[in-house]
Amino acid sequence: MRRLSSVDVNFDEQLNSLLAFETVNDAALIHTVDQIIHDVRTHGNAHVLKLTQQFDQHPAQTFAELELTQAALKAAFEGLDPTVRTALELAAARIRSFHTAQKQDGWQYTDELGNVLGQKVTPLDRVGIYVPGGKASYPSSVLMNAIPAQVAGVTEIIMVVPAPKGDLNELVLAAAYLSGVHRVLTIGGAQAVAALAYGTETIPKVDKITGPGNRYVAVAKRAVFGQVGIDMIAGPSEILVYAEGQNNPDWLAMDLLSQAEHDEIAQSIFVTTDASLLEQVAASVEKLLPTLPRVEIARTSTNDRGALILVKDRTEALALINRVAPEHLELCVDDPDSLLPEIRHAGAIFMGRHTPEAIGDYCAGPNHVLPTSGTARFSSPLGVYDFQKRSSIIHCSPTGSQSLAQAADILAQQEGLDAHARSARYRVGGQS
Amino acid sequence: MRRLSSVDVNFDEQLNSLLAFETVNDAALIHTVDQIIHDVRTHGNAHVLKLTQQFDQHPAQTFAELELTQAALKAAFEGLDPTVRTALELAAARIRSFHTAQKQDGWQYTDELGNVLGQKVTPLDRVGIYVPGGKASYPSSVLMNAIPAQVAGVTEIIMVVPAPKGDLNELVLAAAYLSGVHRVLTIGGAQAVAALAYGTETIPKVDKITGPGNRYVAVAKRAVFGQVGIDMIAGPSEILVYAEGQNNPDWLAMDLLSQAEHDEIAQSIFVTTDASLLEQVAASVEKLLPTLPRVEIARTSTNDRGALILVKDRTEALALINRVAPEHLELCVDDPDSLLPEIRHAGAIFMGRHTPEAIGDYCAGPNHVLPTSGTARFSSPLGVYDFQKRSSIIHCSPTGSQSLAQAADILAQQEGLDAHARSARYRVGGQS
Repeated sequence: MRRLSSVDVNFDEQLNSLLAFETVNDAALIHTVDQIIHDVRTHGNAHVLKLTQQFDQHPAQTFAELELTQAALKAAFEGLDPTVRTALELAAARIRSFHTAQKQDGWQYTDELGNVLGQKVTPLDRVGIYVPGGKASYPSSVLMNAIPAQVAGVTEIIMVVPAPKGDLNELVLAAAYLSGVHRVLTIGGAQAVAALAYGTETIPKVDKITGPGNRYVAVAKRAVFGQVGIDMIAGPSEILVYAEGQNNPDWLAMDLLSQAEHDEIAQSIFVTTDASLLEQVAASVEKLLPTLPRVEIARTSTNDRGALILVKDRTEALALINRVAPEHLELCVDDPDSLLPEIRHAGAIFMGRHTPEAIGDYCAGPNHVLPTSGTARFSSPLGVYDFQKRSSIIHCSPTGSQSLAQAADILAQQEGLDAHARSARYRVGGQS
Repeated sequence: MRRLSSVDVNFDEQLNSLLAFETVNDAALIHTVDQIIHDVRTHGNAHVLKLTQQFDQHPAQTFAELELTQAALKAAFEGLDPTVRTALELAAARIRSFHTAQKQDGWQYTDELGNVLGQKVTPLDRVGIYVPGGKASYPSSVLMNAIPAQVAGVTEIIMVVPAPKGDLNELVLAAAYLSGVHRVLTIGGAQAVAALAYGTETIPKVDKITGPGNRYVAVAKRAVFGQVGIDMIAGPSEILVYAEGQNNPDWLAMDLLSQAEHDEIAQSIFVTTDASLLEQVAASVEKLLPTLPRVEIARTSTNDRGALILVKDRTEALALINRVAPEHLELCVDDPDSLLPEIRHAGAIFMGRHTPEAIGDYCAGPNHVLPTSGTARFSSPLGVYDFQKRSSIIHCSPTGSQSLAQAADILAQQEGLDAHARSARYRVGGQS
């Protein structure tokens, strides 16, 4: 793994280069996706079926065959190995419990003039959840996307998951069953995003689409943003592990490798004030790498995008953390609570040495859909709030409206909006 | 104004056609904007200055001349006519008060295993606020964008506002002063969005850009989305006024016209169960239109995009409201509270006959930046929450992590992620 130190003369440049990652902006890809969206809007189910046969080699002959029944989901759940079933139920229960604590309520108050002001909170009517198929088909992602929607009170949750050659992951279906998903369609790619965003003969259009996907899915989500809401354009996953004091270097190395095994472009960064610990972790990474089934992916990720960074002190460490704004941040120190107030930007913060990111990925309760590539600077973990929205409420009484109508009149005139001014003025004294 | 009735055989089609509005998707425009963004990233201030001279005919010879001082903002505020100043101060105080009530706090709890879970809420570091110049330069928009950022605790608020020929609206500067804006640059268009998103020699890159703009600005915001956060891609403004019982048709007509005067593509929809009131409102619109300074804009808007819709009963009215998901909804009825629980989708709800939209536009307190074009189905008014973001917190104790690490181990194995499984397993019994 590459080593950096904050005393390097070109440390800032090295850091910028390490963190550089641009979201998809490939003109040919964008054109292809735009065409798929256009064709799905024009031809509906027939085109979705055609692309599903073509790209996924799905054996379905009719569109109806692409939809699963609730009975199939239930059967998948009931067919689970009891140990796995218990673990999945634990995860679902904990995710539901955490997200229930996150649910937001409306509020209102009466001002000193007697006017009522507030906000009403309403769940979305219908959402689409994208679940990748094939090698990256993760049941945990089903729980993490569907349960917050269910807790929010979304009326209809429609899941799409591609089934290459018709093959499905039974645990994904079981997770859908546990999360209250209403409909499951075995479609994927830009065609699934287009079908959810614009609707087809049998798929109603949804209000929001969440969930990770490949480049086609990312570009399609960006293209339909505005027509529907989207969660985010996900980049590669990253972790920053900060350690001080007594640590087991194997634990730290495995936490870094758990990120690296996701993807060749995943990023694992280790930060410490302790040069000796840095070398121990480097050695552990080298020792453990060859023992991993996904060794090639993890090696490419650690070689190309990983880094071990030596800093002088906590002040430098905190500045670096906030500069990186990591998706996952581990604080493997004695006193993580003393660092917490200074952490401004991170998707999720794993406190202390007994909170590996893997626990958060599956079953701690908080969401594992987190802002990547530094977007924790301005965005949040997926949550119930992504499936709720607000409407402002303004209720003026005949007397309460008087001074407001007068101020509105004055300001509207300044903006040259005469109808606004007169509309307000009508309410002053009951007539214009 | 066109008249529709829910008993028309093709009512649904007519309604779809009335509401049809696609966000900007003009390939040539997108290409132009992409080029501007590329050039600003490459050449920085020099290119922004060049485009500002070219597009805005701004007389500045150096980039530094494009920045205003705090003294200039203060002078603008102090130079206001006292009546206008008082109205602006009232508006700012009420907007601040409402948004303070909206501020969110972090939370955490300890679960039954002794693990701490929660979310930390942090303001954004730096935001850019886009304020249109020229004819649509509204001081109220400055208050509505900057005050929520200020209330959230954003460290640096940078405002951009184009100054055609160097001309500025003093009230816009006064509003910036009142809202705690830190820096003001007299630049606009895609070049201003690019400068904010990527930074230049003297403009630091921001974390989020909010505020309305023309087509170039909308396309540029979409292009930089991901690099920075954005509020929304705003469409034309709309209102839906629902009325029953004793109403003054002139009040209702002027409320419709206050929307229509904004823009030729603004949309005003009147809905009632009362055929006679519908005709009275139609007559009032015709009577009042010629008296407006902005008669041509308002006439085009009402002719092309306006509608008077007769419905059978409240059930139909509510279904129609939720179908439209209007940006602004007025409920001009005796008992708006009885309708409120059934309203699922609206940006802001103006309750009763003494709450014209104009009061909400300026000084009621709630935000006037609202989801347009039916996006109230999935999005919310601009608020303090747009300038705050969350980080999840997970803190497992050595014993509290045991059952979680075991479940994570099982689920990670099912997903084929061995390093995840082992990272969790290390924490079971303290070693693997």
